[in-house]
Amino acid sequence: MTERSQPQPRSISIFGSTGSIGCNTLDVIDHLGGSEAFRIRALTGKGNTDLLARQAIAFGAEIAVTADENRYGALKSALAGSGIEAAAGSAALVEAAERDVDWCMAGIVGMAGLAPTLAAANRGADIALANKECLVSAGELFHRGIETGGGRLLPVDSEHNAIHQVFDTNQRHSVERIILTASGGPFRALSAAEMASVTPDMAAAHPNWSMGTKISIDSASMFNKALEMIEAMHLFDMHPDQIEVVIHPQSVVHSMVGYSDGSVLAQLGAPDMRTAIGYSLTYPERPDLPVERLDFAALARLDFEAPDEERFPSLALARRAMNSGGLSGAVLNGAKEVALEAFIDGEIGFLEMADIVATVMDRIGTGGGAVSIDAVYEADSTARILARELVSGRSARSLAT
Amino acid sequence: MTERSQPQPRSISIFGSTGSIGCNTLDVIDHLGGSEAFRIRALTGKGNTDLLARQAIAFGAEIAVTADENRYGALKSALAGSGIEAAAGSAALVEAAERDVDWCMAGIVGMAGLAPTLAAANRGADIALANKECLVSAGELFHRGIETGGGRLLPVDSEHNAIHQVFDTNQRHSVERIILTASGGPFRALSAAEMASVTPDMAAAHPNWSMGTKISIDSASMFNKALEMIEAMHLFDMHPDQIEVVIHPQSVVHSMVGYSDGSVLAQLGAPDMRTAIGYSLTYPERPDLPVERLDFAALARLDFEAPDEERFPSLALARRAMNSGGLSGAVLNGAKEVALEAFIDGEIGFLEMADIVATVMDRIGTGGGAVSIDAVYEADSTARILARELVSGRSARSLAT
Repeated sequence: MTERSQPQPRSISIFGSTGSIGCNTLDVIDHLGGSEAFRIRALTGKGNTDLLARQAIAFGAEIAVTADENRYGALKSALAGSGIEAAAGSAALVEAAERDVDWCMAGIVGMAGLAPTLAAANRGADIALANKECLVSAGELFHRGIETGGGRLLPVDSEHNAIHQVFDTNQRHSVERIILTASGGPFRALSAAEMASVTPDMAAAHPNWSMGTKISIDSASMFNKALEMIEAMHLFDMHPDQIEVVIHPQSVVHSMVGYSDGSVLAQLGAPDMRTAIGYSLTYPERPDLPVERLDFAALARLDFEAPDEERFPSLALARRAMNSGGLSGAVLNGAKEVALEAFIDGEIGFLEMADIVATVMDRIGTGGGAVSIDAVYEADSTARILARELVSGRSARSLAT
Repeated sequence: MTERSQPQPRSISIFGSTGSIGCNTLDVIDHLGGSEAFRIRALTGKGNTDLLARQAIAFGAEIAVTADENRYGALKSALAGSGIEAAAGSAALVEAAERDVDWCMAGIVGMAGLAPTLAAANRGADIALANKECLVSAGELFHRGIETGGGRLLPVDSEHNAIHQVFDTNQRHSVERIILTASGGPFRALSAAEMASVTPDMAAAHPNWSMGTKISIDSASMFNKALEMIEAMHLFDMHPDQIEVVIHPQSVVHSMVGYSDGSVLAQLGAPDMRTAIGYSLTYPERPDLPVERLDFAALARLDFEAPDEERFPSLALARRAMNSGGLSGAVLNGAKEVALEAFIDGEIGFLEMADIVATVMDRIGTGGGAVSIDAVYEADSTARILARELVSGRSARSLAT
């Protein structure tokens, strides 16, 4: 029995506070007592400096940082008279991340989240991790940061949070497998021929969660699940063969853990990020949250099916990256980002995204050994350049025919 | 991190070793190293003294006890030359239960299991509980026994074992509800009129688990689930309103716990008692067991529906007993036992079982306050006598018409 004594409010920072994860985090904090219960140090955002300033004022933050240096003036004037510090640019982000806090929400999307999250980890904060790149592209490095700082790593992705909830760290040796659930996206039932001609708009319609365009398309291609496989391997120190994926269209079972006695433990819930955010915020306590409770009779049925790795080659690419280790996660992710943007821009077809990632992974050596942040950036950048070339080549060929 | 040091084999006794739970327990023990890994003190059975003697010899037990005094000679001669002590009768059962052991499987079915299990609990053994009456009929008394002895109470029923696996005792205040799953039995889809005319053979066919006749019929009437609701209330110290039941025909989700953050944690598994037995035997470690692993793609779907309390009045009777407390569980159970036997013997119809239990509960005051073992026996006996009278009355009326 451990009891946390809280003589003073827990100090926290939120990186990416104007995004979906950030807004939900502030909603949870508000519900759990707001600035009476928590001391908000840094809030960070990018383009929406008005919202960022309003959040900073409402929650009494010490500093608000926009990643976009061009928005410094706008942020500064929005904060005028509030006494809240304003800052801008990526160096300012890292500096804000180095402020001493008990807990930090790592909600910045993409490679931009890597440096500040790593800085907060090294500083010793508990990291509520919503950024994928920290583990996919820089798993070993990030783990080293967490170990150095001595904070806890608390996953916020609904799948990894579910696993965390039912993964008995004291019985790690008896965990046989992790079963990640996947909605299967909007193209679950399409043939490969039909998938070849889907449009970005079709791909962006996620059946269960309301998300941004990029993540919805990643969900449709299952690249999102591919990244989650790599994350799960790093988070729970599993062998690649211990990570399974099962299609579960209703997204009610958020993920599962299988044990050596035949038991499978699962976490289920409504599609509301606040459960995972709240769990990470007050862990090991559970907060009381106004999220919808599951009504199993109303749900009526939960379906499961094996993923088709022919139609969804992203899953096999994840296995390749997991088995290769080193920088191959960074290569996969960098190439995927470029391919995704090219699909959104209409330059390539839906199925070509995986082709491009596979070719980039074929051509770039993944490199083992010690991984530095510079090596991660370089692998990411090399993969993006090559993917870009491949996209241009395909577009050119496609124009020629 | 807690580690158990095991300088010498864990000493154990198995009450009801020739029954289904007992045989599965010995199978698990055999798999985990047999008499090299465990020191078997007492094994007990009833009619099948040949099997009891073979088990005692195979596992090197100190004593074998048959509950049936008339089988003493048979047991004695089956054990001749083995050096294993033989004993018979209910006093001998209690005496065997008072032998000092680390762990005891309480696998005796019915009221006969109460006295020996209570003796073992008082003596301080960890109790792997497969007997229902200890909690249904004598919940408070039994809890007092566990507290006095200082052992742990580890439920073996698949539902309660599932709950135990996902019930965070350190976060008890954040548990909102327990969701017991029920297969719904063979009559899930029948109308009340159709249910009125079902036969004992029809009722005894359980769709998922292979069980004895009585428990299969209890499953068909959902009296089995009614008893489990009362057990769950006692085991996890819940308010009656916190116990829900949902029909889940595939019996894959063994039960669930709902938390204040909206999370529902579930334990799933194949219908194999060895998982729950092994979990209780080595808790908090998990054993490596050769039970079937779940394949979700093969399972394909899991269904849920609300139980119909009109057609299954047993559930409402359980709520009545839970709310009344005191001896009402003993009254419900005693009346149910008589009604069940009357149904098996063709004296009453399927739906009349609940009528009789309800009438008995109406007529017998449940009594609050301190509950002694004598008061439990008396309530049980009074309920049985009254139920018997009601059965005879109905049979007589039915003959007259």
